[in-house]
Amino acid sequence: MINHQVDERHHVVIIGSGFGGLFAAKALRRVPVRVTLIDRTNHHLFQPLLYQVATGILSEGQIAPAIRDIFRNYASMRIVLGEVEHIDPVARQLAVTELDHPVTISYDSLIVAGGAVTSYFGHDDFRRQASGMKSLDDALYLRGQIFGAFEEAEAETDDDRRRALMTFVVVGGGPTGVEMAGQLKELSSRALRRNYRRIDPSQTRVVLVEGGDALVATMGERLSRITRRDLTRLGIEVHLGAMVTGMDAHCVRITQSDGSIEEIPAATKIWAAGTGASPLAARLAEKTGIPVDRSGRVRVNPDCSVPGYPEVFVVGDMMALDDLPAVAEVAMQSGAHAAHTIRRRLKGYDVMRPFHYRDLGTLAAIARFRAVAKIGPLRIGGFIGWLLWLVVHVTFLTGFKNRFGALARWAISFVGRGRYERALTGRWTVHEQQPSEKSA
Amino acid sequence: MINHQVDERHHVVIIGSGFGGLFAAKALRRVPVRVTLIDRTNHHLFQPLLYQVATGILSEGQIAPAIRDIFRNYASMRIVLGEVEHIDPVARQLAVTELDHPVTISYDSLIVAGGAVTSYFGHDDFRRQASGMKSLDDALYLRGQIFGAFEEAEAETDDDRRRALMTFVVVGGGPTGVEMAGQLKELSSRALRRNYRRIDPSQTRVVLVEGGDALVATMGERLSRITRRDLTRLGIEVHLGAMVTGMDAHCVRITQSDGSIEEIPAATKIWAAGTGASPLAARLAEKTGIPVDRSGRVRVNPDCSVPGYPEVFVVGDMMALDDLPAVAEVAMQSGAHAAHTIRRRLKGYDVMRPFHYRDLGTLAAIARFRAVAKIGPLRIGGFIGWLLWLVVHVTFLTGFKNRFGALARWAISFVGRGRYERALTGRWTVHEQQPSEKSA
Repeated sequence: MINHQVDERHHVVIIGSGFGGLFAAKALRRVPVRVTLIDRTNHHLFQPLLYQVATGILSEGQIAPAIRDIFRNYASMRIVLGEVEHIDPVARQLAVTELDHPVTISYDSLIVAGGAVTSYFGHDDFRRQASGMKSLDDALYLRGQIFGAFEEAEAETDDDRRRALMTFVVVGGGPTGVEMAGQLKELSSRALRRNYRRIDPSQTRVVLVEGGDALVATMGERLSRITRRDLTRLGIEVHLGAMVTGMDAHCVRITQSDGSIEEIPAATKIWAAGTGASPLAARLAEKTGIPVDRSGRVRVNPDCSVPGYPEVFVVGDMMALDDLPAVAEVAMQSGAHAAHTIRRRLKGYDVMRPFHYRDLGTLAAIARFRAVAKIGPLRIGGFIGWLLWLVVHVTFLTGFKNRFGALARWAISFVGRGRYERALTGRWTVHEQQPSEKSA
Repeated sequence: MINHQVDERHHVVIIGSGFGGLFAAKALRRVPVRVTLIDRTNHHLFQPLLYQVATGILSEGQIAPAIRDIFRNYASMRIVLGEVEHIDPVARQLAVTELDHPVTISYDSLIVAGGAVTSYFGHDDFRRQASGMKSLDDALYLRGQIFGAFEEAEAETDDDRRRALMTFVVVGGGPTGVEMAGQLKELSSRALRRNYRRIDPSQTRVVLVEGGDALVATMGERLSRITRRDLTRLGIEVHLGAMVTGMDAHCVRITQSDGSIEEIPAATKIWAAGTGASPLAARLAEKTGIPVDRSGRVRVNPDCSVPGYPEVFVVGDMMALDDLPAVAEVAMQSGAHAAHTIRRRLKGYDVMRPFHYRDLGTLAAIARFRAVAKIGPLRIGGFIGWLLWLVVHVTFLTGFKNRFGALARWAISFVGRGRYERALTGRWTVHEQQPSEKSA
């Protein structure tokens, strides 16, 4: 294939500006290639802190720096704000809608890092009731739902309805669900103290529902137990081995492993349970017969390349390899690995180097000054765990100013009790009203 | 009238949590009254810095702290999140929609501080094209429009359309318009440097249109001249004596005082020209025959009370008194004055004390390190003016943490070149497309 472009350098196209795409692009900085980075949004998203945007600690910009600004000194890099509609790995072309212009982008190498979307495990009717935790829009929507619920409770005269407004059900006991539940409790018991006259926010009910038999299961039994103990001490109701089997505007139905059913009246539900690969994986698989797993992830070769298409790499949450988990660290390392493979090939070394994941650890903050950390052979809870959480998050936040800003906000929220971002704006919609025949 | 409430204390109702309502409530802190503060939003808004939210320097929360948090230690104060539908000054009652519950609130004294709304001087068709600068939602909408325009320009292939996307027309040469125009130029020439590959943001055209013959006219001739000179040096086109006589999605038509007409192709327009009193004034005047002026403001007695209703006060932007301008300082002082009058009456001193406005000055930031300041007899421009701007804004921002946070952001944006808040979210809508028959 002849490259008709004026710029004759090898052209690497990266789809997605999450951790996978970001680390791939950074690893290509000094490589003599042309890079095009395509994303639907104009920002990189530091997803592990989304729950802090939802609960009013951090502002959007603090976890979502502009991609163009991150890469402003990468002269060989172009950024396209657009949606990839179709990947043609035979013609080595992408059909992209750039804002509202359809464009075709050819590549020599392709790194697909489209990330994950919220999966409701087939219960697509839950989508309307329980927001996911994947995008900045999800977090801002939840911010309105959470702070709005307390306003509605203050104005509500019906006792049952008020209790439902002050009940938050978090589905999913992984780090995201644990952190969200912990922050909801911190918010209601500390940050909102003395803010209301009719309701007592410390009476807020936070319910964490996990289908498996352990919280943060990947962190091992001991941390799982510590997490459960710490959350319970905070006053959070933890349901293990409980599946969400029904949901409407006012209620969540959970079915315990023994078959018993409980109905929890709750206005706000948060879905931190399931993720599936971006639908881009299915589109990539569609014509080429590239295999995908149950979560829709692409089964890749040991070097993250796609079987039959060595110039196409799939990394991060879209990649199925060695049962690696869909976490930020895997995305960072596999993104960089794909970039290094491209660099080596351009230098003429075309021996496949398999991707080896270095598990640097997992962390989950439970409340201020309490976290659980699994780092190498270490399993640490409590305050030391929280210090580790702090150091790791400050280190990985992109850009000095975001680190500085987040530290300042954490000082305000954890040492103090303030929440900066509580403004209800046009995004806020009041929770669906209980039908009047029920409210009596 | 018999007070049927359990709490027998004098009940002061304050409508609005802007500067007028905030200062009235604070002045009532140690007075033995019950206070109810009613606002449509859950936040106090520091309006003078809205333009910094729109241009990505500050986050929502930094200029919009939660009202409930500001007043958390005011045990005798209730906050109602709702819309005042009707004021009945004869029955001393308000009809309020609290979220979606209709409630009736009786008062002994009433302070109406509903503020101002954007006025298009009869050109209501401009509303669709040019956002005002009054609410947090306005600022967030503009943030999407401004940062979105550069994204659209980068993707645009048509030269004329691209130029229109990189043209911003600010209507109104008061402090708000001047600060907005200055920040748009700073943003495009400094903050976005090296962010794009196809467009050069420093080529952005910023046009400031003022109907009168001077910018920041209330600050006197010398500062007006300095302002114009500084803005022009920055590269902003200043049109004085120019009225906006037409506007559509792609163009602004301005008519000069000599009758000549100019059409400026521009995708983004910002309306900083006119304000009128909240429509609440008309609702208050409706049945009682209370006089309003041309801007819809209520003509009050010298002590800010309403003729015929001594227990009703109108303050701030809704008040017509002695040709006082609709600025934050007047709102703060008149709000506090009304509260002091209520306090004195409760002590038995019912001699009317007229409101005397102490003009502490006016400030307008032109760019980083440049502002104009009129303080007492002083007229100061340049860097010293900017230092004054800094000190005054830090002093008046509500709450220590907002002061600290804003200072940090200013250091980042003015000493550095960063803009924290650039994330385009679901609020962002692409500018209306040029019809295809024109784009050829």
